[in-house]
Amino acid sequence: MAGEAVQTTEQGQEGTRAGGLPGTRPATAATAATAATAATAATEGPITPRTADYAQWYQDIVAAADLVDQAPVRGCWILKPSGYLIWEVIQRELDVRFKRLGVQNAYFPLLIPQSYIHREAEHVEGFSPELAVVTHGGGEQLEEPLVVRPTSETIIWSTLRRWIRSHRDLPLLLNQWANVVRWEKRPRVFLRTTEFLWQEGHTAHATPEEAREFALTMLGVYQEFADEVLGLGTLAGEKPAHERFPGAVATFTLEPMMQDGRALQAGTSHDLGANFAKAFEVSYQGEDGETHPVYATSWGMSTRLIGGVLMAHGDDRGAIFPPVVAPVQVAIVPVPGRDEAGTNAVAQAAEQVRRDLAGAGRRVVLDDRPGLRPGAKFFHWERRGAPLRLEIGPRDVAAGQAIAVTRHDGQKQPVPLSGIVAAVEALLDRVQRELGERARARRESRTQRVDDRAGLEAAVANGYASARWCEQTECAEAIQEATRATIRCYPLVATATGYVAEPNDPGPCVWCGQPATRRVVLARAY
Amino acid sequence: MAGEAVQTTEQGQEGTRAGGLPGTRPATAATAATAATAATAATEGPITPRTADYAQWYQDIVAAADLVDQAPVRGCWILKPSGYLIWEVIQRELDVRFKRLGVQNAYFPLLIPQSYIHREAEHVEGFSPELAVVTHGGGEQLEEPLVVRPTSETIIWSTLRRWIRSHRDLPLLLNQWANVVRWEKRPRVFLRTTEFLWQEGHTAHATPEEAREFALTMLGVYQEFADEVLGLGTLAGEKPAHERFPGAVATFTLEPMMQDGRALQAGTSHDLGANFAKAFEVSYQGEDGETHPVYATSWGMSTRLIGGVLMAHGDDRGAIFPPVVAPVQVAIVPVPGRDEAGTNAVAQAAEQVRRDLAGAGRRVVLDDRPGLRPGAKFFHWERRGAPLRLEIGPRDVAAGQAIAVTRHDGQKQPVPLSGIVAAVEALLDRVQRELGERARARRESRTQRVDDRAGLEAAVANGYASARWCEQTECAEAIQEATRATIRCYPLVATATGYVAEPNDPGPCVWCGQPATRRVVLARAY
Repeated sequence: MAGEAVQTTEQGQEGTRAGGLPGTRPATAATAATAATAATAATEGPITPRTADYAQWYQDIVAAADLVDQAPVRGCWILKPSGYLIWEVIQRELDVRFKRLGVQNAYFPLLIPQSYIHREAEHVEGFSPELAVVTHGGGEQLEEPLVVRPTSETIIWSTLRRWIRSHRDLPLLLNQWANVVRWEKRPRVFLRTTEFLWQEGHTAHATPEEAREFALTMLGVYQEFADEVLGLGTLAGEKPAHERFPGAVATFTLEPMMQDGRALQAGTSHDLGANFAKAFEVSYQGEDGETHPVYATSWGMSTRLIGGVLMAHGDDRGAIFPPVVAPVQVAIVPVPGRDEAGTNAVAQAAEQVRRDLAGAGRRVVLDDRPGLRPGAKFFHWERRGAPLRLEIGPRDVAAGQAIAVTRHDGQKQPVPLSGIVAAVEALLDRVQRELGERARARRESRTQRVDDRAGLEAAVANGYASARWCEQTECAEAIQEATRATIRCYPLVATATGYVAEPNDPGPCVWCGQPATRRVVLARAY
Repeated sequence: MAGEAVQTTEQGQEGTRAGGLPGTRPATAATAATAATAATAATEGPITPRTADYAQWYQDIVAAADLVDQAPVRGCWILKPSGYLIWEVIQRELDVRFKRLGVQNAYFPLLIPQSYIHREAEHVEGFSPELAVVTHGGGEQLEEPLVVRPTSETIIWSTLRRWIRSHRDLPLLLNQWANVVRWEKRPRVFLRTTEFLWQEGHTAHATPEEAREFALTMLGVYQEFADEVLGLGTLAGEKPAHERFPGAVATFTLEPMMQDGRALQAGTSHDLGANFAKAFEVSYQGEDGETHPVYATSWGMSTRLIGGVLMAHGDDRGAIFPPVVAPVQVAIVPVPGRDEAGTNAVAQAAEQVRRDLAGAGRRVVLDDRPGLRPGAKFFHWERRGAPLRLEIGPRDVAAGQAIAVTRHDGQKQPVPLSGIVAAVEALLDRVQRELGERARARRESRTQRVDDRAGLEAAVANGYASARWCEQTECAEAIQEATRATIRCYPLVATATGYVAEPNDPGPCVWCGQPATRRVVLARAY
């Protein structure tokens, strides 16, 4: 059935007109308004310029893009249909990549006995301050409190003891799509939320080498996804020891640069060594008949990515979404003529374009709200981040064309109404590519090699610093105290055969002057 | 990359050999064993016959199908990859149906302030005994305890106050895919679990008629899904007042019959009237400029359905899955020849069949485990419920055929190796249809019209009873006390224009003899 709503996937998308827009009444009882409608007025407020107050700008474009609403519990947000749609695309894109590697989805319970968290020493230290604890169930106090999972290593490894016995059971590659809760003292929408949605992968391997290789394979999957789908232009690297996941022997990370020069940790892949297997007494019998330890990885990406997309691409007029994840990819705005005949011709042409694009699986809205000027509609869809706008006026119809405006650079060009699908797809492909290139170029141009304190301080005020570091945690803490920058990673370079470390570059530590072997990337971070 | 694992979706399914089977070592480090492997020994235990102990039979086939593992928290289970795959198919099939109606997905938080649950009087009474309560977060006692959502009406309606203001905001059609927690005193795998996965739809409408119509539309969507995809042969109906969802003005239900004649409530769609909108002070301004109440529906299906599928179709040899949801749709078992040449020819043919079927998007396993007789493999895949087995021996290869065995009826027939895909799809279609027909026929043949106590008692010992009832709750309680049967529903009949009630049939109540207008269906239930 044809719906008035902004369709949330390509499926069943035969009808998408004026999706949930104020002033447009659904034509039939069976059609749906979007959840956005009533809140639209609130989302049309002013946007603080990035240069004036980047944090406020971020909040403003989150509102402008109409992705979330406030929840009654502090640190939690409601994902409105447009926000959840982005997550659905992320899920689909990641899930297909995982399955290509042979990863299988499973589901482990939300509630974990508190004692489980205590089984791995570093793990409990890392997560205890963030736990939400269930003490009562079914009207009675529980004998043992249960924690709402902050992550699932403990419950999964307590289970794998039953699943892994022989070398034939390895490798075991699992993933789950789940919500997790980590009590957040300074919450920030998408970036740090008490509850968030994510995927957490957990794998088990026969050798430490194989676990390491898989953790790096997943880092590569994540980077390809983050760069191709989200256009984040990420830096890949390995965390220094003091920034590892609690219980990991190595943590690999993606660190895209936001427009204020800060880093956002966008996904991590951990080599857990045999730590969790030992804590939960998991071992396997090898072909040699002997008992061997089991090596693990875990890896996750979350709704935090949505915040990264907003901060990486948005501008002072609103959000800008890469087409692959854009809630609305194409906004069609009819420009009425001076007479009824011209206006009708425009309406018909616009509807035909909408049908063509919807039929090709595009998320498209025809903004035919009456009583609103085209300029107000342009403004509306710019704020929401639709990567492409199609303007159609009487002269365009006569010329058999529409005017395509790409959101990220404001370029205008005519596109033929016959062949509109191919023209739009080519434009969206270009936008997708250019957003990614822009993010990568920004990171590269704003990464400076520095060798002294003054250089470091200047570099992290504007972007990333590449500097030698002595690998002492105390020195990292001193740097953070003085500059608010942290060691983001030892950079890794992707090659045809996998990631390799940057060559050693011995010299004095940028901060303390002690001998250092390698450069790290430092930045302020979210 | 080719994987040794049972692939969990059609995507990326270029390789599926001997999925995670004991005795089959993954060929490369990048391939995965299934989570099932080590547990296989445990899953090959005896299956209690249905006639001996139906409850034990159910537990035995759940184990045989290798869908779950135990969790440390009572009432919770781990969904292993095969179990979660069924849920993924259910999600995909339902989601596309919802989107066709214009429903949009969103996500509301897991944690709900306890006071919210108290806003709707019947709601709090219904759910209070089942709540899990978070009292501590981030190391501190919370000012107000939070409940882990048992369902989301309260948090959603507290939000819709901001989303619904004008008639232009209606209808609003939302759904979320989520986990919920309801403390379960007598848990049973899939059927009654403390945590479960589900979807919950929530809609808002301008008129009571429209809400009622939508609740019935969704009942129709659910029934089509349950019958076509899961083959449950459901009875649709309306619950009596005392069996309604807490806060609903009408609850519609699907009640498939299990093989022991009991009913399983498999999905419900509620007309909530204006109860939640009033409790949360949601109203809208109509075209008339006046303020009007908002009318609501909610509707849900859950992982309980997996238990229904198992109980509806399984037999004394194990699970039987309808092809659309079967974790493995086709199991290929090569039957070795007496010489190496014949055995090699069989292996090659079997591998070609696997490739052809995987390429066509089928979930297929080639069981080439060495050291196991074909009969043991037949037994293995029968237990796991694969709807179709293909046996290939040297004579079959010579004849250009395989022997197809359909799990539900044991029928054997040759299928040509050239054209194997079409032959398999036709067979799977037949199995899908016949399982549904069998379930429907069972329900119909085991539903008896009865007019007295003795008849009722006999009927519910074997199946469903259609009987007049006086509509007194006390009488329903007396019936339950005496017969363990409950009023399942007032049956609804699907017609071209929607559901209609069965015609009135006045007469004495089957139990108390007082005047009754209509017949209800009574049954013992899960």
